[in-house]
Amino acid sequence: MKTALTIAGSDSSGGAGIQADIKTMTAHGVYAMSAVTALTAQNTTGVTDIMGVEAAFLGSQLDSIFTDIYPDAIKTGMIFSAEQVYVIAQKIRDYQAKNIVIDPVMVATSGSTLTSNEVVETMKKELLPLATVITPNIFEAQVLSGMEIRNENDMITAAKKIYEAYGCAVLCKGGHLQENANDLLYADGELQWFYGDRIFNSNTHGTGCTLSSAIAANLAKGKELALAIKLAKQYLSGAIGAGLNLGKGRGPLNHVYTFSFGQKPDGNKLENS
Amino acid sequence: MKTALTIAGSDSSGGAGIQADIKTMTAHGVYAMSAVTALTAQNTTGVTDIMGVEAAFLGSQLDSIFTDIYPDAIKTGMIFSAEQVYVIAQKIRDYQAKNIVIDPVMVATSGSTLTSNEVVETMKKELLPLATVITPNIFEAQVLSGMEIRNENDMITAAKKIYEAYGCAVLCKGGHLQENANDLLYADGELQWFYGDRIFNSNTHGTGCTLSSAIAANLAKGKELALAIKLAKQYLSGAIGAGLNLGKGRGPLNHVYTFSFGQKPDGNKLENS
Repeated sequence: MKTALTIAGSDSSGGAGIQADIKTMTAHGVYAMSAVTALTAQNTTGVTDIMGVEAAFLGSQLDSIFTDIYPDAIKTGMIFSAEQVYVIAQKIRDYQAKNIVIDPVMVATSGSTLTSNEVVETMKKELLPLATVITPNIFEAQVLSGMEIRNENDMITAAKKIYEAYGCAVLCKGGHLQENANDLLYADGELQWFYGDRIFNSNTHGTGCTLSSAIAANLAKGKELALAIKLAKQYLSGAIGAGLNLGKGRGPLNHVYTFSFGQKPDGNKLENS
Repeated sequence: MKTALTIAGSDSSGGAGIQADIKTMTAHGVYAMSAVTALTAQNTTGVTDIMGVEAAFLGSQLDSIFTDIYPDAIKTGMIFSAEQVYVIAQKIRDYQAKNIVIDPVMVATSGSTLTSNEVVETMKKELLPLATVITPNIFEAQVLSGMEIRNENDMITAAKKIYEAYGCAVLCKGGHLQENANDLLYADGELQWFYGDRIFNSNTHGTGCTLSSAIAANLAKGKELALAIKLAKQYLSGAIGAGLNLGKGRGPLNHVYTFSFGQKPDGNKLENS
């Protein structure tokens, strides 16, 4: 069984954070582990409280994980402090981790701010250069590229700028931009668009977490990056499209929608690894 | 989609605690939420560090959950402090929670002690009387009944004592006692044995968490208690029997073994609720 690790915050309501990541990896038949950066008291209407974890304790969690069950892929989500960024980068280097998907989380779907400028600046310096791919949305890509993004041409320019600045592949997610949901991958000097129809379902709590952990799960299973992204987008579309409707705000996805059809997330026959 | 809540600790290695609970509930097609009592730095060889959560913050997580997505069932696992026990009991009363499965966790499979006498004493007074069912193993049943348990007759006596003292149904798990794995349910003055063959697999990290959250998931889906337990034991046997072998110590279960066979945990055709 392939293994994957999420380094992220805990969402008590179960739709985002490590909970979404664990559900997504599990739905992909991948063994999920988690190092918690922060706890939130949160539901579909917003975040009411955050409790950050000491960077040293985050380090202890990562040591426990890497010295026993080595992850075939890693996904990072919400990071609480600059010290945590340093610890994560150090452990990635120490343990020579591979298949690293970094979701540069800044704001939750509910609108709640989840991170500080200092964290973002430290991520730029320490973490992004270690990434296999980063998955910013339009807002995050604007912050990372330092430019405004109004259309798909701007997405291309911004993705190139981020790639050149940090040396990592960039999946710039267009979902917040326009009527469709086209994402752009810029990797090794090559552009690739992933086309997606916008799904009319306001229940999108945890979409960013779900996409990045689905990419990590597919990388853990040995898929190439572009295929890992394509399959992850298909899974995300299905999980949104399943039309789950829980909670008073932007509700969570149905991470087990594939169970309904007896299919794995990639549409193939069920198997065990 | 039915919903369930786990109130428990986080296991970084993903095999026990909220991680096992989320995987189990997800594998049952139930929407999982979690209120975290403590973080652990842990793997299959033991617990290296524990960070308890303030009781007030646990209360905030529970408020966020109950006021938005109401859980159809609850499972409690490791509780870090007596103050947390009071908060959990208060929220269960305030929100009139139902289908409450209490796993009176005292020691992890790896041997690490996870709770204090004060927590156990407070649980006896505040929490057990609110339970739909509690799921002690032999060691925990000895502590709760105040008697030594050496055989199945002792299990009956101890279960009756616990039932009479706290007024809750008791599933006394015989797995630590002998060569088989027979569990005894004592509820409403009736005894019922659930017979199980011992599965020769030393990878049993998270078995207690998995059983109690599978019971909660089945209760959330509307099953009667005895059937919920029967199905949960079948799921647990399958998850152990799948023979996953991860980590250097007692490894975790395969929570998604059902995916291999295209079956739901209860052996029936896949469906979505």
